[in-house]
Amino acid sequence: MTLDPSRLGPMANAIRALSMDAVQAANSGHPGMPMGMADVATVLFSQFLKFDPAAPHWPDRDRFVLSAGHGSMLIYSLLHLTGYARPSMDDIRNFRQLHSVCAGHPENFELAGVECTTGPLGQGLAMAVGMAMAERHLNAGFGDSLVDHNTWVVAGDGCLMEGINHEAIGLAGHLKLGRLNVLWDDNRITIDGDTDLSTSEDIAARYRATGWHVTECDGHDFADIARALAEAAADPRPSLVACRTIIGKGAPNKQGGHNVHGAPLGADEIAAAREYLGWTSAPFEVPTDILSDWRSLGAKGASARAEWEARLAGNANAREFSRRMAGVLPQQLPAFDAYLASIAESQPKVATRKASESALEALTVDIQEMVGGSADLTGSNNTKTKATTPFGADTYGGRYVYYGIREFGMAAAMNGMALHGGVIPYGGTFLVFSDYCRNAIRMSAIQKQRVIYVLTHDSIGLGEDGPTHQPVEHVMSLRAIPDLLVFRPADALETAECWALSLKEAKRPSVLALTRQNLLALRSDLENKSARGAYRLKAAEAPRKVVLLATGSEVALAIDTAKVLEAQGIGADVVSMPCWELFDEQDPAYRADLLPADALKVSVEAGITLGWQKYVGDGLTIGLDRFGASAPAEQLFEYFGFTADAIVKKITVKL
Amino acid sequence: MTLDPSRLGPMANAIRALSMDAVQAANSGHPGMPMGMADVATVLFSQFLKFDPAAPHWPDRDRFVLSAGHGSMLIYSLLHLTGYARPSMDDIRNFRQLHSVCAGHPENFELAGVECTTGPLGQGLAMAVGMAMAERHLNAGFGDSLVDHNTWVVAGDGCLMEGINHEAIGLAGHLKLGRLNVLWDDNRITIDGDTDLSTSEDIAARYRATGWHVTECDGHDFADIARALAEAAADPRPSLVACRTIIGKGAPNKQGGHNVHGAPLGADEIAAAREYLGWTSAPFEVPTDILSDWRSLGAKGASARAEWEARLAGNANAREFSRRMAGVLPQQLPAFDAYLASIAESQPKVATRKASESALEALTVDIQEMVGGSADLTGSNNTKTKATTPFGADTYGGRYVYYGIREFGMAAAMNGMALHGGVIPYGGTFLVFSDYCRNAIRMSAIQKQRVIYVLTHDSIGLGEDGPTHQPVEHVMSLRAIPDLLVFRPADALETAECWALSLKEAKRPSVLALTRQNLLALRSDLENKSARGAYRLKAAEAPRKVVLLATGSEVALAIDTAKVLEAQGIGADVVSMPCWELFDEQDPAYRADLLPADALKVSVEAGITLGWQKYVGDGLTIGLDRFGASAPAEQLFEYFGFTADAIVKKITVKL
Repeated sequence: MTLDPSRLGPMANAIRALSMDAVQAANSGHPGMPMGMADVATVLFSQFLKFDPAAPHWPDRDRFVLSAGHGSMLIYSLLHLTGYARPSMDDIRNFRQLHSVCAGHPENFELAGVECTTGPLGQGLAMAVGMAMAERHLNAGFGDSLVDHNTWVVAGDGCLMEGINHEAIGLAGHLKLGRLNVLWDDNRITIDGDTDLSTSEDIAARYRATGWHVTECDGHDFADIARALAEAAADPRPSLVACRTIIGKGAPNKQGGHNVHGAPLGADEIAAAREYLGWTSAPFEVPTDILSDWRSLGAKGASARAEWEARLAGNANAREFSRRMAGVLPQQLPAFDAYLASIAESQPKVATRKASESALEALTVDIQEMVGGSADLTGSNNTKTKATTPFGADTYGGRYVYYGIREFGMAAAMNGMALHGGVIPYGGTFLVFSDYCRNAIRMSAIQKQRVIYVLTHDSIGLGEDGPTHQPVEHVMSLRAIPDLLVFRPADALETAECWALSLKEAKRPSVLALTRQNLLALRSDLENKSARGAYRLKAAEAPRKVVLLATGSEVALAIDTAKVLEAQGIGADVVSMPCWELFDEQDPAYRADLLPADALKVSVEAGITLGWQKYVGDGLTIGLDRFGASAPAEQLFEYFGFTADAIVKKITVKL
Repeated sequence: MTLDPSRLGPMANAIRALSMDAVQAANSGHPGMPMGMADVATVLFSQFLKFDPAAPHWPDRDRFVLSAGHGSMLIYSLLHLTGYARPSMDDIRNFRQLHSVCAGHPENFELAGVECTTGPLGQGLAMAVGMAMAERHLNAGFGDSLVDHNTWVVAGDGCLMEGINHEAIGLAGHLKLGRLNVLWDDNRITIDGDTDLSTSEDIAARYRATGWHVTECDGHDFADIARALAEAAADPRPSLVACRTIIGKGAPNKQGGHNVHGAPLGADEIAAAREYLGWTSAPFEVPTDILSDWRSLGAKGASARAEWEARLAGNANAREFSRRMAGVLPQQLPAFDAYLASIAESQPKVATRKASESALEALTVDIQEMVGGSADLTGSNNTKTKATTPFGADTYGGRYVYYGIREFGMAAAMNGMALHGGVIPYGGTFLVFSDYCRNAIRMSAIQKQRVIYVLTHDSIGLGEDGPTHQPVEHVMSLRAIPDLLVFRPADALETAECWALSLKEAKRPSVLALTRQNLLALRSDLENKSARGAYRLKAAEAPRKVVLLATGSEVALAIDTAKVLEAQGIGADVVSMPCWELFDEQDPAYRADLLPADALKVSVEAGITLGWQKYVGDGLTIGLDRFGASAPAEQLFEYFGFTADAIVKKITVKL
């Protein structure tokens, strides 16, 4: 069948038919891309992609990323045609319906074979960079016999125009990720019209400027596609293949225009397309011979996979490799346990960013799959440890990535690494610049990935850098994202606890919000109390009238406040709440015990108060509902009312 | 003095001395950039920049943007030396202290002469693109005699590595903004170390690929700098000048290394620098002759400004030009008034995105300074009107920008346009992709700029595109940003009201969160009730036991719910809350009247519930605390419990 257009053509048309029929049935969706890229995808899957539909989680499979996720019918068609268990034809019939695995955009948690969830433009390609990084890293550790695969991406003009594309390809070019190949659907159409409405860029030149190999092909000429893909696969640099395509190819009256991008073709045009393509089957039917050609591709991968399984069985590192790929932590963490004991004893007064570094020093020894990094704030985020030597084009075995000033690119790459498996990524930037990568953090959560964000300088406590750098709304804004754990630890011990909890969460991402300024040690016991999200750090001595709820750097302030209250005969509990999400998961009795109805509840956090009403009800919120200011931290805390005396005054008015 | 190094050298050293002394006194800050770029800045201000320190708001001044905002002492030095009223030398002495106008990063609201607030990397340059767009647009309308200036930017490696740089320069190149010139501090150092730690990019080639002119110079050779800047000024394309500099130039033992980037030099190195530079003055003292050279530059601009004032006085459009530059709306909005009357009458059932389009059709006729656009979602955001013809390289008079798939670039450009003045920018994307430009929205608020974000597809009501496109946490996350008005109107009339309110806010940005799906008309009166942020749309008929608080598409659902409750003899108010921020500014009596203590308060909003406790207290929150799903909208609303029956059931349990 190799390069036989008489067979590849109908195979590609099967994609076109399924795509236009599914979009029509759903009465929404994007036929343009799947129809335009059907020929390219057919060549990729038939000649280049290493995959086994019977084992979609095979670690050494090639990764295929549909970065232009709106063209989801392309991947649903491919998975079905090549013989994955799902989607079935019924799944495809239910495209975009409630509970269908064929969602509007491809979702990794719905379908094996969908390597990542795409739709937010630019991120698929940027995640693919992370996958390619993970591949080279594991290859350095486990060798060619276990890890030797490519990452293939289909991307559209949108993916390339987004800012994140610059960050992603800059990183990939710098790291010389030659096994990453991007097939650009170069159709010169965006939603608003021709690309020249908004861009005049020489994309090939831009990619070359960042160290990429660039080639092009006629995206509807099978031989030319195969030639270009072979060139891309062979080149030692990451490759961009500009596939000149006609959007909606096959819909004779609409192809090549922007109206075919994101709307059903309509019954008339579908009829015309059937005639144009010579496709006589009913909707959602694929002729047996064409399906058989597709299924033979799927079967082809089985032998490659069997050989790999045999190699794994004979590999001395098989157990460790499999443990890492399964995402299971080592059973023992001796260095970390020793570290915990040491700080419980030594009671260090340190910034939580520094405490995080100390925790990481131990954890990165115990957990070899941790790969760290920072978006050019290594010395500020305290993310580098002795065990994590630099990861670079000549040192893929390294475990520390100098991501450069690329927050969004870093976050997406971390998603890609986690999705690839075998690696637990963590990376740092300033908390305020979580804004720059916010949608990738959201995508960590949607995709259920263990990605750990080390976000330092977590309040006005950073001081002089001023309002552009002071995250007043960010902790709460991150709490707003579903399925994301937001930790704001209060001292070195809580920081270590939160690290341990983040790492244990195999299916959720975590944020660690950490201080620039030093914090007193508040506890010396070794029970991981942060695990319940909140706990009573200090019980009232006088009859309890007040419960102070605080996080991070404000927990010590809450303790000071409680002392002043107790001196006035007002009993006050202090509850440290390092993680709201875990607290919300506790049983009602535990929660009610911490938040008694008969006490005035007072929140203390150096950020916006919006949201705290959830716990304090009609109580009192102490916070900062405005942008900060540039000044030394101690002055700012005093100026904005974060002192025990100022808080006590407000409490006594309210009591 | 022209190009006399014997005078320019000491002038540049004045910047160096002030910068290192101020950072030392503050014991924090960034000496590396100001010292490295002192020579370039001296040439720019002495030979190229059009400015008059006595009239910092002169509309036809050149705009100078310090995109690398951490180097704030560069601009503070320049403003002081050239004779702006502020900063005084005392201001500089108080660098980074509470209430000082010399904040850690330059703040447009603190100092005239600071054109925009910078610090978040990449955004200064991207705002400069917007300034250059506004300049060409106003030039097209008012001619060379009133509008004929350049935009100059100083940017660092960080600004260039950020993703937004790709979007910004792509837009600038496409629009052929030849009056935009970027002076890149090419020092090959980032915070983490040498740039080659994280990038291998050929930056010049990348800029050329997007239609830019690129030249370079020795950033410490005055003649070479002047040659390059002249070349940049003359070229019809936007220009990048790669200024090869030594970071921290003048600090003999630290210059050229990354440790000089962001920390005080220390007393010893400052002493060494004084010797190296031959600078014998005490800290915060500038020798009279050097200061006099600087002040003469400042004085030079006065004559150019006087000539311009004379031209303005004789210009037939002077009144209109001045009105626009002052940011004052036209006194009458006849088309908009007529539109309001027509929908109060016709009661259209439309999506609020469509109602927004209709409001805009009228507003863009009435308010000629409105310049719209969309990040490639024109037909979805409904942002284009008949009055707003395309803005392009050949049509700078146009008022609609096809921003391309560049959300962050669009938002920053809008900030730049607003900062430039004479233009009121609005632009659209999907609400979920506010994530992509979130920090620029924050910067609209910090900078107190009237920028209007049209964010459509505002809930699961968008249906089939699924969780990656469904903004469940975004409305609340935007409410979290201080000084930002978040509007979520409930019908066509509220949408028009919210538009009117957004436009009236001369010093605050606004978000309009708008539906994809059609909504019933709920009101017919013409009082702008949205102006109070919330109002009672329906009063209880039976004795009031419940108050339903809702926004946007859920207001109609709240009314349906109230009907069911009333039928059961349970009186229920319905309060529409299109804008929390405006409601919070109402007097306590008004707020208490809407939120009576003796009723069960119930919020209804198709997004996260976190935050609503602020208004409902111990009441009930109806919302969606998880990611959405891909399905037709009506099914999703039902599936997630957004039906009158489901809500009534929860209410009656609670009553």
